[in-house]
Amino acid sequence: MAVYTQLDEDEISKFLKQYDLGDLVAAKGIAEGVENTNYLITTEIADSTKQEDRIYTNYILTLYEKRVRSEDLPFFIGLMRHLASKHIHCPSPILDKNGIALQKLNNRPALITSFLHGICRRNPNKNHCFQLGAELARLHLACLDFTMTRENRLGPKGWQELVQACAPNACNRVQSGLAGLIKDEFNFLNAQWPHLPKDNPELPFGICHADLFPDNVFFIGDTLSGLIDFYFACSDYHAYDLSICLNSWCFERDLSFNLTKASAMIQGYQSVRPLSDQEKHFFPLFTRGSALRFLLTRLYDWINHDSAALVTPHDPLVFARYLRFHQKIKEFSDYCL
Amino acid sequence: MAVYTQLDEDEISKFLKQYDLGDLVAAKGIAEGVENTNYLITTEIADSTKQEDRIYTNYILTLYEKRVRSEDLPFFIGLMRHLASKHIHCPSPILDKNGIALQKLNNRPALITSFLHGICRRNPNKNHCFQLGAELARLHLACLDFTMTRENRLGPKGWQELVQACAPNACNRVQSGLAGLIKDEFNFLNAQWPHLPKDNPELPFGICHADLFPDNVFFIGDTLSGLIDFYFACSDYHAYDLSICLNSWCFERDLSFNLTKASAMIQGYQSVRPLSDQEKHFFPLFTRGSALRFLLTRLYDWINHDSAALVTPHDPLVFARYLRFHQKIKEFSDYCL
Repeated sequence: MAVYTQLDEDEISKFLKQYDLGDLVAAKGIAEGVENTNYLITTEIADSTKQEDRIYTNYILTLYEKRVRSEDLPFFIGLMRHLASKHIHCPSPILDKNGIALQKLNNRPALITSFLHGICRRNPNKNHCFQLGAELARLHLACLDFTMTRENRLGPKGWQELVQACAPNACNRVQSGLAGLIKDEFNFLNAQWPHLPKDNPELPFGICHADLFPDNVFFIGDTLSGLIDFYFACSDYHAYDLSICLNSWCFERDLSFNLTKASAMIQGYQSVRPLSDQEKHFFPLFTRGSALRFLLTRLYDWINHDSAALVTPHDPLVFARYLRFHQKIKEFSDYCL
Repeated sequence: MAVYTQLDEDEISKFLKQYDLGDLVAAKGIAEGVENTNYLITTEIADSTKQEDRIYTNYILTLYEKRVRSEDLPFFIGLMRHLASKHIHCPSPILDKNGIALQKLNNRPALITSFLHGICRRNPNKNHCFQLGAELARLHLACLDFTMTRENRLGPKGWQELVQACAPNACNRVQSGLAGLIKDEFNFLNAQWPHLPKDNPELPFGICHADLFPDNVFFIGDTLSGLIDFYFACSDYHAYDLSICLNSWCFERDLSFNLTKASAMIQGYQSVRPLSDQEKHFFPLFTRGSALRFLLTRLYDWINHDSAALVTPHDPLVFARYLRFHQKIKEFSDYCL
């Protein structure tokens, strides 16, 4: 958690003049997202000189650091604009006076978005899980007419690269036997995976958030209020996206699987869009795939972590545990009551 | 720059229920202050269910980490409350429903204050310097009837401890000859220093901010809007406090002294409270003292810096340069036109 680029507040103030957002009255570097620099900025629209008539509004200013590829930014920004237009609450990109969203600041791509109210629930209950499932389905449906696509670089091809990048010795130093688990699992998944969406018409394929962990979902009180952090969004199977949520929302801190929460999430999803028989058939494979995906990226970061860096990597072994759990699952109905 | 304590947002939400501030609708860890954990929190007073009637307000939630002594907190909080009551704009401590400001959260002392609008000017101009001088004098006068006191632990006695704690070899590794500069300067200052305020009635002594660097002063547009970070505030000579501002506002990035800015600052100060002849007499000594004070604390942090820590220490040598500059100054009039 860190601010990567220290901005001069004068510079932000000058930058804001190309927008119709009023004057900068506060700018704070915030510890949100591990990939980019984020500032919470407050502006004032001075309608009147009377103190009580002043209107302060919060926005988020993001500077994209090297882990986000600049060629992907039009997709991410287009997606957020599309979702906002469909009333899926998410940070909405703000256009400057010339109608342009993506800017440059301090030699980095920069974007201002609306500030999304809400707080995340690191210990979600089944009600939160139900709402998350329903919102994910709404997101999938809202994107059916979104025309841009983005390959999931963290699909089977990406896993293969990560398997090769994480040397067996290094894996086994993290946990004895881990290299074998990963290699066998990758071979199994790669053989079973429905690699071609066009050959699987009963497996809905489209825009996925692909990283909808509890940190990325806001609630006001107990009501879901919005989704953030679309920087892994891509084109993939909708049921695979749901499996990512199952992995990140339905295990307890002691790593036990909470069937009540999973049932609520799947029920919430199906209350908006029922899953097809094919999706149910592939769901256990997808949960294994998403567990392997996060195991591999976390493991890679863990092994290649610079101990002087500001960010502490996440523990990869959590997902090794989830994966071993999913390996024992026989069918979709084992995930819900 | 870092958030030291990661708070669960649910926990903040629960904590807020003891206040009359409305419901928590956002909480962001901010990279402000190097000593404490700060969250920018946004609350909503729901007057109506109509979206457009919602009133969002920002506050700062501070958790005091180990570098602030808990026995000093009543002084700091009392001072901020006193200043707010005197219309010196600063973070104003918020009382809970029982009228209590200082709380506990996550096993640490915790305080909510008002959110101060404004941005800091890292390249202040002479107009900013004039206003800063005037505001410092107003702060000094506003505290004449504040009854609490706090010894400046970073006065001559504190310097002596720091001189002893920074071994000559370690100093000289930072810069050749640095240990000698420090030792000689300390001996000189300690011999000349007006150690007893009661023996020096012409040297006004009272509450000082004692750390009024540009980062701690906010402007809206070009108008000074407030002061923050009172965690070095203490009882000391008012002219010494002004000398801290001179050291931190009137040198350029190339470390050259800007006489125009210093003149404006001193003129601003004197527009509110003229300096006595005694204060002018001691001023060159005070500028040397404050340069040594920041040289010593930065040097100590530099030498004892844990390279794995989140905070990069400030360069101490800047203040060695300032100190050498001040050693050549003969009298007060050399600091202003």
